[in-house]
Amino acid sequence: MELKDILIQRSTELYQNYLPHISIDCVVFGFHEASLKVLLVRMKGQEDGWALPGGYMGKDEVMKKAADRILTERTGATNIYLQQFRVFDELDRVGDFFKDYPHGQWHAQRFVSVGFYALVDYTDVTPVIDEYSDACEWMDVDSLPGMVMDHRAILDKALITLRRQLNYKPVGNKLLPEEFTMPELQKLYEIILGKSLNRGNFYRKMMAYNILDKQEGTRKGGAHKAPNLYKFNLERYKEALKDGFKEGW
Amino acid sequence: MELKDILIQRSTELYQNYLPHISIDCVVFGFHEASLKVLLVRMKGQEDGWALPGGYMGKDEVMKKAADRILTERTGATNIYLQQFRVFDELDRVGDFFKDYPHGQWHAQRFVSVGFYALVDYTDVTPVIDEYSDACEWMDVDSLPGMVMDHRAILDKALITLRRQLNYKPVGNKLLPEEFTMPELQKLYEIILGKSLNRGNFYRKMMAYNILDKQEGTRKGGAHKAPNLYKFNLERYKEALKDGFKEGW
Repeated sequence: MELKDILIQRSTELYQNYLPHISIDCVVFGFHEASLKVLLVRMKGQEDGWALPGGYMGKDEVMKKAADRILTERTGATNIYLQQFRVFDELDRVGDFFKDYPHGQWHAQRFVSVGFYALVDYTDVTPVIDEYSDACEWMDVDSLPGMVMDHRAILDKALITLRRQLNYKPVGNKLLPEEFTMPELQKLYEIILGKSLNRGNFYRKMMAYNILDKQEGTRKGGAHKAPNLYKFNLERYKEALKDGFKEGW
Repeated sequence: MELKDILIQRSTELYQNYLPHISIDCVVFGFHEASLKVLLVRMKGQEDGWALPGGYMGKDEVMKKAADRILTERTGATNIYLQQFRVFDELDRVGDFFKDYPHGQWHAQRFVSVGFYALVDYTDVTPVIDEYSDACEWMDVDSLPGMVMDHRAILDKALITLRRQLNYKPVGNKLLPEEFTMPELQKLYEIILGKSLNRGNFYRKMMAYNILDKQEGTRKGGAHKAPNLYKFNLERYKEALKDGFKEGW
């Protein structure tokens, strides 16, 4: 069955269960082999029609729970750290995508979409396709495929938000293995920021945040002096996630 | 006429013109006599029922334009710098406020509210009451009156967002007179942050942002050495507002 027919069939049920006019789009970032990835779905029958995983909020459901539910369905992962970052409400945001759909059909409504972003452990995720999609894959943020509607703009804005977040909140837990070296953590920051950082400055600034515990052992293997291993101190990490870093002004 | 009767009378018209389930709440900050103020309206007949200025978005209106319209109605000020900062969607966010309203009445719907905050020139604003309110006043953020629904939580979150913004965006244009001294700018930051700052550090950090132009003259009067006057370089200020400061990581 074609995408359009599937969606039309679902219309009544969607009206019964969800708040009209409000949708959710999720930008799910993962880190793998020194590159930043984002989880995309390809809409059924759309060759270059990749989309962000998304959905709607139940009439008696809070938005964060709805976003959790949507992501769990798509990834199998639970307890994902999700953050709303912006509302997308341009009048032409879906373009012509639903232009041949019947008037009054659920998908043909005007939707104001709330963007969430998530940082996940790449290895926790098993991408799942649903009845609307024929692919669900991790894509490199540096070489993205064509995307439907305003989803590319939503993704770009999530990336800007993530970069900004590096200035006032910790990032890295879930993206890195439990134990990591300072160069590995620096690499993650460099990938997110899209630029190189000075090694000494990075070390000093990161240590000043007081969220790392140095481990006893060192990373084995390799010709050079084995680098020290660190873990995030999860208690202080969570505190900083909630309140922001104490530095700044 | 009582508030409830006025609102019930408006229900049909509101359904015709606005998107259901979505509202807008505005937190308008101004700076006056070394204190941070917020613009509040008192809902008609509610003794301790102060609220944020708010409203709805037209069926063919973008949200930012709707927020602009709402604020212009309430303040007479145009071209206000407005920033959406969060969606508020708790199931019990309005509490019992509309519990005696007829089922299906516009205001008795579940609303997901988008919070905007604005920084305005206190002197540009002429608070205006509407048919729902019997007062519209600037209140000091340090001594707020009782507020309806979840409006106090929305205000608190806006203040946290504004504080955070000091770490990556310029603040001060519109809040300060065109020419100001470094101590006056520092005072503004201290009021927003609710804490004292070191004078030397403040000066160095602020100059590094490269958004100030030192003026020829000095502030006259006073016994001490007259302090230098500065202006924001609006071109670089706007650039920093758009892209964030170049420092940070």
